[in-house]
Amino acid sequence: MVFQDSDLYKWMETVAFSLQWDRDHEWEKIFDEVVSLIEDAQEEDGYLNTYFSVNHPDKKWTNLKDDHELYCAGHLMEAAVAYYDATGKTRIIDLVSHLVDHIASVLGKQKGQKAGYPGHPEIELALMKLYRITEDQKYIDLCQFFIEERGKRNPSHYFDIELEKRGGGVKKSSNRNYDYYQAHLPVREQKTAEGHSVRATYLYSGMVDLANELKDKELLDVCRVLWENTVNKRMYVTGGIGSSSHEERFTVDYDLPNDRAYTETCAAIALIMWAHRMVQIEADHKYTDVLERALYNGGALSGISLDGKGGYFYVNPLEVWPHTANCRHDMRTVKPTRQKWFGCACCPPNIARLLASLGQYIYSANDSEVYVHLFIGGEASFKIDKQSIRLTQNSNYPPWEGRTKLTIDLERPATFTVSPRLPGWCRNVQILINGEIKDVPVDKGYAKIKREWQNNDTIELLFDMPVEIVRSHPEVRVNAGKVALQRGPILYCLEEVDNGANLQDLRLKTNQSFVVEYENGLLNGVTVIKGKAAATDKDAIEDKLYTTFTYPEVEKEIKAIPYYAWSNRGENEMTVWIREK
Amino acid sequence: MVFQDSDLYKWMETVAFSLQWDRDHEWEKIFDEVVSLIEDAQEEDGYLNTYFSVNHPDKKWTNLKDDHELYCAGHLMEAAVAYYDATGKTRIIDLVSHLVDHIASVLGKQKGQKAGYPGHPEIELALMKLYRITEDQKYIDLCQFFIEERGKRNPSHYFDIELEKRGGGVKKSSNRNYDYYQAHLPVREQKTAEGHSVRATYLYSGMVDLANELKDKELLDVCRVLWENTVNKRMYVTGGIGSSSHEERFTVDYDLPNDRAYTETCAAIALIMWAHRMVQIEADHKYTDVLERALYNGGALSGISLDGKGGYFYVNPLEVWPHTANCRHDMRTVKPTRQKWFGCACCPPNIARLLASLGQYIYSANDSEVYVHLFIGGEASFKIDKQSIRLTQNSNYPPWEGRTKLTIDLERPATFTVSPRLPGWCRNVQILINGEIKDVPVDKGYAKIKREWQNNDTIELLFDMPVEIVRSHPEVRVNAGKVALQRGPILYCLEEVDNGANLQDLRLKTNQSFVVEYENGLLNGVTVIKGKAAATDKDAIEDKLYTTFTYPEVEKEIKAIPYYAWSNRGENEMTVWIREK
Repeated sequence: MVFQDSDLYKWMETVAFSLQWDRDHEWEKIFDEVVSLIEDAQEEDGYLNTYFSVNHPDKKWTNLKDDHELYCAGHLMEAAVAYYDATGKTRIIDLVSHLVDHIASVLGKQKGQKAGYPGHPEIELALMKLYRITEDQKYIDLCQFFIEERGKRNPSHYFDIELEKRGGGVKKSSNRNYDYYQAHLPVREQKTAEGHSVRATYLYSGMVDLANELKDKELLDVCRVLWENTVNKRMYVTGGIGSSSHEERFTVDYDLPNDRAYTETCAAIALIMWAHRMVQIEADHKYTDVLERALYNGGALSGISLDGKGGYFYVNPLEVWPHTANCRHDMRTVKPTRQKWFGCACCPPNIARLLASLGQYIYSANDSEVYVHLFIGGEASFKIDKQSIRLTQNSNYPPWEGRTKLTIDLERPATFTVSPRLPGWCRNVQILINGEIKDVPVDKGYAKIKREWQNNDTIELLFDMPVEIVRSHPEVRVNAGKVALQRGPILYCLEEVDNGANLQDLRLKTNQSFVVEYENGLLNGVTVIKGKAAATDKDAIEDKLYTTFTYPEVEKEIKAIPYYAWSNRGENEMTVWIREK
Repeated sequence: MVFQDSDLYKWMETVAFSLQWDRDHEWEKIFDEVVSLIEDAQEEDGYLNTYFSVNHPDKKWTNLKDDHELYCAGHLMEAAVAYYDATGKTRIIDLVSHLVDHIASVLGKQKGQKAGYPGHPEIELALMKLYRITEDQKYIDLCQFFIEERGKRNPSHYFDIELEKRGGGVKKSSNRNYDYYQAHLPVREQKTAEGHSVRATYLYSGMVDLANELKDKELLDVCRVLWENTVNKRMYVTGGIGSSSHEERFTVDYDLPNDRAYTETCAAIALIMWAHRMVQIEADHKYTDVLERALYNGGALSGISLDGKGGYFYVNPLEVWPHTANCRHDMRTVKPTRQKWFGCACCPPNIARLLASLGQYIYSANDSEVYVHLFIGGEASFKIDKQSIRLTQNSNYPPWEGRTKLTIDLERPATFTVSPRLPGWCRNVQILINGEIKDVPVDKGYAKIKREWQNNDTIELLFDMPVEIVRSHPEVRVNAGKVALQRGPILYCLEEVDNGANLQDLRLKTNQSFVVEYENGLLNGVTVIKGKAAATDKDAIEDKLYTTFTYPEVEKEIKAIPYYAWSNRGENEMTVWIREK
């Protein structure tokens, strides 16, 4: 595949992230050897892409639309930054700097340059990462060029210009073709999330980074508009995005079929990356809520098996009936169980780098404020008031218990704000400071706890976490009359192995009290939800396809498990959305 | 297209059928001129297929699997028989006899012959029609050969043998490939309706004809098993068949998606032809009920616009949301409105020949019994007891009124049985003979009225025709919690133009009395069904994709129209299956 260098680079970034918290010398040595290999593969002028160096040296930079050279470069840059952060070593930074200089010599608006940009965005956000550690303006400039040129007609579209140069004639690509690449309009005119969902969310992430750096309010507003369209019109309740397997893409508002959901694992990860950037700019829990939804549920977590080795999902459906998924041609991308491998192996290294960098998503801080975005146990340090402040989080919070405790370690008392997120899914939070319940001001879903902190001060957060009955917007026709079960940030589903076949026959009694039980021996330990449903009396069913009577119903116990843990007990039916009695 | 000769032949058959009841000399002249053209196109040895004569004379009979030579021949034979029935002229019979002799010389089990059979069945039933008028054994023999060879391994599969001869090597086709052609097993071992639905039902029709002629009980039992699988596991409530656009095929039991229904118009017609043959052999209303369902509803009637000129449906979905149908790649075959033309134009001449031959489906008779299968006004004559007996049916029965009247004209009193069908959808029928209510014996859904009939005797049938609430077998997951409305043989649907957008939001109150009204000015005059439904209060809807509350609902009047008449008022939403309150 033309983009296969990126698999190595994503693996490298994963290693680099892991070195940030455990500087294992063996891994570091392997990494350095890989850097030497890449140095050997890099050409004199800085060019670097083994697919073209080996197979088609004459075709470099001739098809930016499809050839992924800039995409691969972006992933290498991300790996370089992560490694520099972990080790302070600059060899790989020098290498990518040489590569970027080459790219900037070939692509640009000067005479003799190609005014092109990548068909698969990714390099934009990587350039901004490089800028962050080098403060070299060239990275911003190139990023800005790629973002601003995208989708313009000067008067021709760049994808047509390069097509003509390749001898393909000026076959005008249709709008459909352009929107697949988010190149149907200049980015500042885009208002809806279109096309290939990974490309889209990588692009939007880069746009946020650029807007943030340039204080470009207009561009940031574009990101906000695209965000609202994505999460309020085109996102599955799992946090998955991209509802069409054809072109792995967004389609239209409220088109969210459950059995033909695409919701690529990589797209959920990209949504997390985008959300992470949005909340850095504007501390609003609406972004973190989506980040958490995608992280704990669809795509990111459901993408891999519980042991990490039992295969992965490229596609994360919300409803599977293996009987049809295994036979219908229009469901051929939907696999009813995780697979050992796919021809395109983009997802596994993406999951790996996400998990290895999870720490980045839990906190953020500036000189006077520490944000607590996610409630995941661990330790973190921040530089505030000229001292290093350590935050220890003890959490059995989500998924299972609505309780977390933060302990502050510092050398001398200091005044700053600790701002834990109050999740949108929680109707009632108690905040205890040093064991005492306190009322604190809240801004956009973040509690603002400002005080002079003493060593060993604690903040406890107690979240109400009842079973919530989730319903879709009425325009989501496929979910009409159906509900999903959620508890805390965890979305649930029914599996055949627990509930028998024909899950669509069940009608959940939603006016009941659900029973919530932690089952230690189940699926590495999960909290299950038990309740009652009505089901057709199987003994009464006749062998008639259409009838004019109603079958008697019986009451049935149902048991829901976390969606992320489905498909770890063999091929079977699954559904997130359950009919409501 | 390789099968385009058949379009002409289906047109010819249509003309021939129309000549049977109106011997228009202009049309007969045109037909005879066409016969001359075909005579000119026929080669010396009897071969006839313009695609191969003109384009690939070297490739005759080299790809029976895909090349449609036998399919086209079959359609010509059907046209010939219809024309002979209408005019008694034998020129076209001679022509097809010459063609059949040629086919029988090339294909067969003798040394030097090819032991092959058509990839697209059709010639089988045509040969049996030729046998009926000629009583020439050669037609049965060839038909039997095609049917019995199908799917056998001797030890190789014929489709592999011819592939190898074409130089394609012995690439073993998969079972999937074979079942598309109903050639995965010898026909006597087939138990489920598989593959391309038109091919399947043409084949099964030919099998019934052959079994009937040979009194082959085993083969007839195969047809019965295939019938039960088709109508009790794989048929839409509209009478449409074939639930996958890929390969226009049957899939698996209970896989009947409404929005991606394929239900090709030609397949509904082929099902009618098959049902017609089944009921000739075994007078059971279960066959006729399906015949009528397909005829009045899905495919056959919904396939064309009300004026016959406003375009046609190749694909007849049961649910359309143009918003997604126009954008989703996996729905690209589903057109939200009838189209002027399709690249493959098989359906229009098929509808034409069905409508022109409708008379064949209304009655059947033997020496002592007249069956009344359908309740359609008109006149028919039968030879019984050595006299011609005329039956006049005055019917405003279905669709709109549950009443029909048969008047018997005869020269002298005669004893025979009149057996009107008692439709399966009707719970209560009154039978009046000469105005008096009579109890009559019933056998498999046919009333048996045996008596000495006098001239001007009348039989009236009064059918109860309330609105019926139809439900699917619980295994049809997509219809769980949904109902369809039917009245008499007519299946109803909701259209957006009558009910507003978002039909899936409506929850029909099924415990109400529905109002049934004939609307003279609507859709050429239809009886509509009015009732009440609950709908989400649109004013309350928020711009949130997922919520944990329930929106208030309002009551809404709904109006259902006959499914066959949908899509005559512009592109809009439609649904057959309605959520039940």
